[in-house]
Amino acid sequence: MQNILNQIDSPEDVRYLNESQLIQLSQEIREFIIDQCAANPGHFGASLGAVELAVALHYSYNTPYDKIVWDVGHQAYAHKILTGRRDAFTTNRKLGGISGFPRMSESEYDAFGVGHASTSISAALGIAEAAHLNKEDRHVVAVIGDGAMTGGLAFEGLNNTGWLKPNMLVILNDNDMAIDPNVGSLKEYLAKLTLSGKYNQFKKSIWNFLGKNNFRTVIQRFENSVKSAALPGSNIFETLGFRYFGPIDGNSIFWLTNAFKRIKNIEGPCFLHVVTKKGKGYKLAEESQTEWHAPGKFNKETGQRIIIKSDKPTPSRYQDVFGETIVELAKKNDKILGITPAMPTGSSLNIMMEEIPDRAFDVGIAEGHAVTFSAGLAAGGYLPFCNIYSSFMQRAYDNVIHDVALQNLNVVFCLDRGGIVGEDGATHHGVFDLAYFRCIPNMIVSSPMNEVELRNLMYTAQLPGKGPFSIRYPRGGDITADWHQPFKEVPIGKARILKDEGEIAVLSIGSVGNDVIKAIKQYEDEGGTPVAHYDMRFVKPIDEELLHKIGKRFSSIITVENGTIIGGLGSAVAEFFTSNKYNVFIKRLGVPDHFVEHGTPAEIHTQCGFDVNGIYKALKELI
Amino acid sequence: MQNILNQIDSPEDVRYLNESQLIQLSQEIREFIIDQCAANPGHFGASLGAVELAVALHYSYNTPYDKIVWDVGHQAYAHKILTGRRDAFTTNRKLGGISGFPRMSESEYDAFGVGHASTSISAALGIAEAAHLNKEDRHVVAVIGDGAMTGGLAFEGLNNTGWLKPNMLVILNDNDMAIDPNVGSLKEYLAKLTLSGKYNQFKKSIWNFLGKNNFRTVIQRFENSVKSAALPGSNIFETLGFRYFGPIDGNSIFWLTNAFKRIKNIEGPCFLHVVTKKGKGYKLAEESQTEWHAPGKFNKETGQRIIIKSDKPTPSRYQDVFGETIVELAKKNDKILGITPAMPTGSSLNIMMEEIPDRAFDVGIAEGHAVTFSAGLAAGGYLPFCNIYSSFMQRAYDNVIHDVALQNLNVVFCLDRGGIVGEDGATHHGVFDLAYFRCIPNMIVSSPMNEVELRNLMYTAQLPGKGPFSIRYPRGGDITADWHQPFKEVPIGKARILKDEGEIAVLSIGSVGNDVIKAIKQYEDEGGTPVAHYDMRFVKPIDEELLHKIGKRFSSIITVENGTIIGGLGSAVAEFFTSNKYNVFIKRLGVPDHFVEHGTPAEIHTQCGFDVNGIYKALKELI
Repeated sequence: MQNILNQIDSPEDVRYLNESQLIQLSQEIREFIIDQCAANPGHFGASLGAVELAVALHYSYNTPYDKIVWDVGHQAYAHKILTGRRDAFTTNRKLGGISGFPRMSESEYDAFGVGHASTSISAALGIAEAAHLNKEDRHVVAVIGDGAMTGGLAFEGLNNTGWLKPNMLVILNDNDMAIDPNVGSLKEYLAKLTLSGKYNQFKKSIWNFLGKNNFRTVIQRFENSVKSAALPGSNIFETLGFRYFGPIDGNSIFWLTNAFKRIKNIEGPCFLHVVTKKGKGYKLAEESQTEWHAPGKFNKETGQRIIIKSDKPTPSRYQDVFGETIVELAKKNDKILGITPAMPTGSSLNIMMEEIPDRAFDVGIAEGHAVTFSAGLAAGGYLPFCNIYSSFMQRAYDNVIHDVALQNLNVVFCLDRGGIVGEDGATHHGVFDLAYFRCIPNMIVSSPMNEVELRNLMYTAQLPGKGPFSIRYPRGGDITADWHQPFKEVPIGKARILKDEGEIAVLSIGSVGNDVIKAIKQYEDEGGTPVAHYDMRFVKPIDEELLHKIGKRFSSIITVENGTIIGGLGSAVAEFFTSNKYNVFIKRLGVPDHFVEHGTPAEIHTQCGFDVNGIYKALKELI
Repeated sequence: MQNILNQIDSPEDVRYLNESQLIQLSQEIREFIIDQCAANPGHFGASLGAVELAVALHYSYNTPYDKIVWDVGHQAYAHKILTGRRDAFTTNRKLGGISGFPRMSESEYDAFGVGHASTSISAALGIAEAAHLNKEDRHVVAVIGDGAMTGGLAFEGLNNTGWLKPNMLVILNDNDMAIDPNVGSLKEYLAKLTLSGKYNQFKKSIWNFLGKNNFRTVIQRFENSVKSAALPGSNIFETLGFRYFGPIDGNSIFWLTNAFKRIKNIEGPCFLHVVTKKGKGYKLAEESQTEWHAPGKFNKETGQRIIIKSDKPTPSRYQDVFGETIVELAKKNDKILGITPAMPTGSSLNIMMEEIPDRAFDVGIAEGHAVTFSAGLAAGGYLPFCNIYSSFMQRAYDNVIHDVALQNLNVVFCLDRGGIVGEDGATHHGVFDLAYFRCIPNMIVSSPMNEVELRNLMYTAQLPGKGPFSIRYPRGGDITADWHQPFKEVPIGKARILKDEGEIAVLSIGSVGNDVIKAIKQYEDEGGTPVAHYDMRFVKPIDEELLHKIGKRFSSIITVENGTIIGGLGSAVAEFFTSNKYNVFIKRLGVPDHFVEHGTPAEIHTQCGFDVNGIYKALKELI
């Protein structure tokens, strides 16, 4: 059989295909994604599930004139492959290569950039209203997963779309999963809809059973379903002003293309509920959906995951240190609770969810709620550890200020993925938190340099009366092989003096301090003047006693942080020196004032100039 | 008739009253609120509407053991009056007096502090889960308005509550209003529920009609409604895992107390829909609900609003300058749109909504959506001016980063109520924005010193290719009587040199610069050395050319901003000097690093030390 995918250079080429060719194309794309992801890690399961959706959308709609807005975007690999990026796909998520997410700057087919969840309906509504104002007849489609649908922003978008009533289609891609299994009462409701029997009526199998000669009968059934679905109030989405269709099999080209054909001619907002399988077409991924969400490299034939070997006995990650330590602490302190917005596996809170299920909560993709819920738990006398990736914490900023800090409640914020995260790129780098937390009164803002320090900060945070306490740590880990040390209380606002002798000083925060050690060693080994090094541990409260000593002793210092050079550690030090009459030159190393793209963390650190060599160079230049 | 209210020192006293006494008490509270608010401005309409709700809740529930969480909180005056703050109510919203909102630190009856919308369900869920973990049998009630219900956080709370299934009651206080009339498809749905006939069945009038002898019949009807309501899927709130009751008349003690009596014994999450009238009991407030949301002082008998007289011809407010200027600009530039999340009157976008209705959008209380919707409009080629109060912009922080700035879209953010807002207090002060925006790449962060500058910044922001552009201005205004000046483009990142001679310099941003002028005059008039003064206009990009000159010329400067001294203008200047080897002492004036309470703006400026006298003192101390 002739390969079709090789001939698809744009969606235009898709539109000449017939149904069986579309099915073949979907299969080829699926094989292509499996091949690619086996060699070059990416978001695997979600993209496999959405292959037919991407094929059918580009077949049915006149992209790029018509606009498809993907929510989250990690399911959009088929979309990328169909829209001129098949050959570039080998560079997926690599430095200088294509992004793992839709990006407006990358392709005219990417109608809106994304990476975080729940934005698609609001963005699509804006695009649809712009088209309406321009008197353009373009179709606008938002594709959102059931996980992303639990985010409040999606509801806000639905509520406003149902009110403004533009011609717009929202497709709910329901695979019953976020990265981990989806949670929430909406999920239960969606399951009811799907199990109601109507879904099975519209599976492809019925079509096969009836045969092509009964085309009219099948279509008639769909039309009837369209009709019955349109009864107002019979359905949550109808309640919000949409015409609801489905659920249909979202891995069926037949149902998708037929549904789109009919829905395109309906005025006003429509809602199509499609059921897909995460990991579709790769058996292991279908069976273990969380594990195969983003599996890393693997052997395509055996499914064996390829893990890079290490000589060290226990490769560790900060997230595992968090996950094991919270259980250890929670067993001693029965007020400790664990909260995650849909990241049990990503945060390793799943360890606590298994060991102490009553006291660990996955609240779904809902960061704002996660924080305000934590505030309520704290008001009720408990001590929640609310674990949110740094870049996702941006979504709960007011909840931190208004619900936690203002009331000085005892909530511990564990910000995983603080700093450059690497391959996920600009949307996911957690580089703003030191700046945006530092201006909030009552907050303690800390970051450990290694795994043992993370444990000790967690231990300290759960001691009585600490108020809002933030601990940020990066993706990865493996600095301290044996981090199972007894807990030690960390004095709040006190730095660690790692090396006090020197003519210049480096002040660092977080695990990047380990690169500072290497850079100083290299510099001194080559005959450079001695360099002092302080691990600040806290950007707030900052160690003023130490800063006085430094201000008196040094005329030049370097600050190093895995975060924006605006507003974080460097700024805190600059504020201190300038308001205490110290004349100190500060070289601030960190993430520069532009959005940083994807690549390995090491590559990006180099780009930003705070890898070992960058710090080394800064030392040389300073003297 | 003996006055009851005078004898109510705590909710305990309410529980001894019979129904007719509760009705009398409600009437007395209503009179009390009218008397108080006529003399001492406050949130009038919402509190009048919720009087019976507060009375019935404290009658029916065992507060403070049982927990009532008020959403937004400006409707909670009756609650405050009943819970030991009747006599203190004359100090409402005054410096050192009680807060206009519930505060945990103020009373054990205030179960959770608030000021922003949509937090109550999440917070109540936290309190309910804490009670469950403690094996306490306390009742937890969230009271949320239909306006606040449009916020995505409320949906996130519902979704998680319906999943965790605690014993918890959510009361929807439906008056069909935010500050302005409510919008959104949910509002339409609620209206349908209320008009469905069931509501009228359960109005007090039916009770009166049937007479007390038919008590059983009335209750039977309610029970039947309870039963029929419990059919799953018949209702959006049922869909989300709640048992739904209502709608009932929320201004009826009878229906409320009977509903609570029955609902208290039901396991799992319940949802009670009550219909109230905003402004209830004060005719003018019932008729003009937006105007009487927070009317300022008024003559109780005539309803005449008491406006403080001024000699100036046209008292103006920054918000009106915004409101009139956007219309002026939009008439010339047909790409300009106006967006507000439920603040048409508060932002003065209502002017555009009347004059160019197609191009001005009220999206409801949904700040995140307002920003992402704006991003979508910008992706569609339009130029949205998204107007959000500074403290509410905290709710859309990720939307600004992820949806606007990262894609470098042309969205203009107009941050009204930037800086100290006064009587609304800690939840509403807009003091973090300079810090939290300054660390975002691609953002232009500006603040005008007067009304003409606001116009010129708005004019500049709509010129081609400016990318994300933030303009923040304070509550109030009236500095420039005649601000209707022809537009002038403002060079991006350029300060205004107001006074160049001097031995020390003051760098200010925003309207606080006018106080700097007064302070300098006072200081120089008393024989002080000359003081230079620069209106920075932009904290990002900051005027580096000017800062080089200042760094070379001055050894001491003062920075003044109506925002946190951490992270804003002062920090930007400190960063610049320390990284460019200038030895300059900086005295940073602004909002100190603690949450600032309520009072008049002038009083709070004095407290914070950046009123005229504070600046004057800083000048004296500096030399």
